[in-house]
Amino acid sequence: MITTGSITEIRGYLKKERENGRTVGLVPTMGYLHEGHLSLMRRAREECDYVVISIFVNPKQFGPAEDFDRYPRDPERDKAMAEEAGADVMFAPGVEDMYPAGFSTYVYVKGPVARGLCAASRPNHFRGVTTVCAKLFDIVQPDKAYFGQKDFQQTIVVKKVVKDLDIPLEIVMCPIVREPDGLAMSSRNVYLNAEERKAATVLYRSLKEAEQSIANGLMDTKEILDDIEAAIADEPLVELEYASICDTTNLNELDSIDREAVIALAVKIGKTRLIDNVIVNSEIEK
Amino acid sequence: MITTGSITEIRGYLKKERENGRTVGLVPTMGYLHEGHLSLMRRAREECDYVVISIFVNPKQFGPAEDFDRYPRDPERDKAMAEEAGADVMFAPGVEDMYPAGFSTYVYVKGPVARGLCAASRPNHFRGVTTVCAKLFDIVQPDKAYFGQKDFQQTIVVKKVVKDLDIPLEIVMCPIVREPDGLAMSSRNVYLNAEERKAATVLYRSLKEAEQSIANGLMDTKEILDDIEAAIADEPLVELEYASICDTTNLNELDSIDREAVIALAVKIGKTRLIDNVIVNSEIEK
Repeated sequence: MITTGSITEIRGYLKKERENGRTVGLVPTMGYLHEGHLSLMRRAREECDYVVISIFVNPKQFGPAEDFDRYPRDPERDKAMAEEAGADVMFAPGVEDMYPAGFSTYVYVKGPVARGLCAASRPNHFRGVTTVCAKLFDIVQPDKAYFGQKDFQQTIVVKKVVKDLDIPLEIVMCPIVREPDGLAMSSRNVYLNAEERKAATVLYRSLKEAEQSIANGLMDTKEILDDIEAAIADEPLVELEYASICDTTNLNELDSIDREAVIALAVKIGKTRLIDNVIVNSEIEK
Repeated sequence: MITTGSITEIRGYLKKERENGRTVGLVPTMGYLHEGHLSLMRRAREECDYVVISIFVNPKQFGPAEDFDRYPRDPERDKAMAEEAGADVMFAPGVEDMYPAGFSTYVYVKGPVARGLCAASRPNHFRGVTTVCAKLFDIVQPDKAYFGQKDFQQTIVVKKVVKDLDIPLEIVMCPIVREPDGLAMSSRNVYLNAEERKAATVLYRSLKEAEQSIANGLMDTKEILDDIEAAIADEPLVELEYASICDTTNLNELDSIDREAVIALAVKIGKTRLIDNVIVNSEIEK
């Protein structure tokens, strides 16, 4: 596996691959890899001839009071894991490579997909995500890019950018990978102490209960959300940021589970913000 | 010459050309072609194997009180002229092709290059320009794209997007083409009646006088601008919107002509808005 932080260098490698007619898969990450990231890489490995993983803790998607500085980083471990998962290139640029002095262009999505859910508490977060993704797509020009369902809103927002700007690539959303007790894999799980880690299982527990209620015929989203909120209120360490049930295609809130829907949660546990979601009433899930 | 409004179709043509290793030049226009556009096409024809001209009156770069509806259009004449100038494809999408229902992604530049000059009176103009250019660049994926110096700020703003987002293409800025009496070619010149058309020559006249003063050693931009304003004030039909002298690289206003500078003008003549500029103190100009 080649490792580079240089835009010029990675373009050189990719040019050669494309001249040989090989397809390119991109897995954009912020590093500190876990099984979720590895599942994306394995999928890319299956579907594409040449697999690029990018590792970039993107300052533009963090708010001023957020955890950019303390976000966990371990380049050597990431490198070993990416190589093991079959990546061909690890692209790990520095902040000065991606945002040289005077950088001032942004890509953003207006409207509901980038307004509710996580956008409410993280006002410029998705603008940071879509800007860095636009750059990565222009640098790598992949045929497919792989995102995890854990960041469901992010995936929908990035899909919207790709569609609206006619970027010639396919966004592939891969299922959430979970710990044995159901906690969704996240680089931020490392922030949790033992007690918080235990409390964190309430996210998936409450989502599973909601899933079960829906399977039993409960369709009223207000009632479903009341149950989730009650479950979370029972965990004194966990503070709910939002629980929401939305149309998966446009993230409009639903009154009733009358189409494919995402039940999405964000909580704070101590200083750690965690998110999780499940998709319900989906043909894909059956 | 092939004519199409379909994104899928033009992608098909371009894929074949690129597979044969041919370079692609794009000339983005709003149609109603004149000698200025033709000069861009001829330059593209010289430098690239395959030349695409796009014709799209982009609603997103017009303000609500501006001339989108009455902007001159003549597809048949454009087609004949583009073919004559050697274009291989004319890409003429409809508004619904470029902005289907629900479109909501924008590309914009923050900061001085997209703030002063034309941006002051046209607040969302450059956001419309950069959004449509990002789309055209993603659709055509040209090696080079050609813009006219007449829209100097536009060219600088688009260059900024290309640099900041790592779009792999070169922006080529071509000299202004003028009528025999000096008026810069513009599709909007057709709006002028005989009297207005005569008065419009004051733009280039005042710019030439400024150029001459600078050649004679006048370096104080305030004095230069006073002379331009006085010349325009002498034309009762012409209302000055701005006269400004800026660093060509970042469009910061200059106190003194101590580096390459652009002298840029915008005026209203009746309901018609016209712009013009000259570059001074440039190595390129010598």
